[in-house]
Amino acid sequence: MSGVTDTVHPFDAALDLQPLEPGRLRGRTEPRWTNMVGPFGGITAATLLHAIELQPDRIGEPLALTVNYAAPIADGDLDITAWATCTNRTNQHWTVELRQDGKATTTATAVFAMRRDTWADTEAAPPAAPEPETLAPTNFGDVVVWANNYDMRFAAGAVPLDAEPSASSTTTLWLRDAAGRPLDHAGLASACDVFYPRVFLRHGGFRPAGTVSLTTYFHADAAALAAVGAEFVLGTVSANRFAGGYFDQSAQLWSRAGTLLATSHQIVYYKA
Amino acid sequence: MSGVTDTVHPFDAALDLQPLEPGRLRGRTEPRWTNMVGPFGGITAATLLHAIELQPDRIGEPLALTVNYAAPIADGDLDITAWATCTNRTNQHWTVELRQDGKATTTATAVFAMRRDTWADTEAAPPAAPEPETLAPTNFGDVVVWANNYDMRFAAGAVPLDAEPSASSTTTLWLRDAAGRPLDHAGLASACDVFYPRVFLRHGGFRPAGTVSLTTYFHADAAALAAVGAEFVLGTVSANRFAGGYFDQSAQLWSRAGTLLATSHQIVYYKA
Repeated sequence: MSGVTDTVHPFDAALDLQPLEPGRLRGRTEPRWTNMVGPFGGITAATLLHAIELQPDRIGEPLALTVNYAAPIADGDLDITAWATCTNRTNQHWTVELRQDGKATTTATAVFAMRRDTWADTEAAPPAAPEPETLAPTNFGDVVVWANNYDMRFAAGAVPLDAEPSASSTTTLWLRDAAGRPLDHAGLASACDVFYPRVFLRHGGFRPAGTVSLTTYFHADAAALAAVGAEFVLGTVSANRFAGGYFDQSAQLWSRAGTLLATSHQIVYYKA
Repeated sequence: MSGVTDTVHPFDAALDLQPLEPGRLRGRTEPRWTNMVGPFGGITAATLLHAIELQPDRIGEPLALTVNYAAPIADGDLDITAWATCTNRTNQHWTVELRQDGKATTTATAVFAMRRDTWADTEAAPPAAPEPETLAPTNFGDVVVWANNYDMRFAAGAVPLDAEPSASSTTTLWLRDAAGRPLDHAGLASACDVFYPRVFLRHGGFRPAGTVSLTTYFHADAAALAAVGAEFVLGTVSANRFAGGYFDQSAQLWSRAGTLLATSHQIVYYKA
């Protein structure tokens, strides 16, 4: 089996869902996305978004996605349900659940929408960063398996190798699929979660930490993503407050041409 | 009836939910929270959060809340269901639905958590603002009924009175309950949605606009909120990108003493 699986791109292998009946799908964890405990949260977000994309009554494109990581996901089968709670003329609301052995491990809500031609304006500005070709890719080795699916080049705030606190929790990096898979909305959902927990940088050193809830707003439509293709995107992330065992971090993903593709926020459990 | 209702604080009147059976509650729209279409989104968020607070099996305090405004809420009864999708040792995941006549108008997910004593740090900084006593309260008159429940004092980015575009979509304001109700988590959930749509400021002028999905991260525990009491809190908000009929805005709420109480994000529908 693993020989067959490995001929499929790891992202597409993880998103290979069998529709059982409308609103019910069966998937399977993909070993190449293994994280510390269970799969990388980004691939889970992408899988749940893709479950909606596969629904025959789905309208529009992804606009918003919130994923709640309630319990660890074990290696094996994934039972996914996705149902439209409300369908409007130009948008649609979805609720998604991921279960294993009947127990909900992950819940999500999403909004899909048909975008219209409107006045448009980007107020945020991309972070400064040297060109990606001038930066070295990071080798994550066997420690963080999933990270090898990305070509990540840190411009600021690389994974700390010491336990020194940092005045800033900001990381800025160039990112692209390591095997040249073009970006789509599922890929964008995953890419929004590549940033390691900000507590590592601000507190200094590795700490137990894991995403509890992740919300992504998709600013890019399919045409904007097609224009990105397999090119690098520029990500930046920083934290606001760490307290009581939880902190929040907010991220932006930009195309190399300067289009804001997505903004993404998460609340993260930590020990320190 | 209205005479009886009016003796109850408008916030507590809106949050007056009758538990029908575990996980099912009945509420009613409160006229004093009327917005352009249906009730103010903040009071709906607070109501759904409070539905969880009332559940006998609830553990911990609010940590994260995502509310999806799927369809307009009509004046009248609210049928709320709230169920724990997963209960862990120190946190609990919830799914909530608000229905009218059997149709889901609003869906939500929430995480409640027991905070622990940890290393803590606030990296974000509060915005500069003059003391609230030096600023005039805004009179919203009969146009925006719900806004009169707050004493709002704009330090920057007041509601635009002309149709001129602005170089910045940032609004900073002092905010407190107009009738002196002390802040709690439900109050904080509501307060995170007081910021008028950023398209009014950046594009210039009033436009049709409404929140599609709202996510709030609660940084303050009950003790921190008790310390605020009925005092002013400082809110600041700005947008990232407007395109295709949707924009996102991110907000922070600070105590007057400089504690970051909540961060909140939303994606908003607009016409322009």
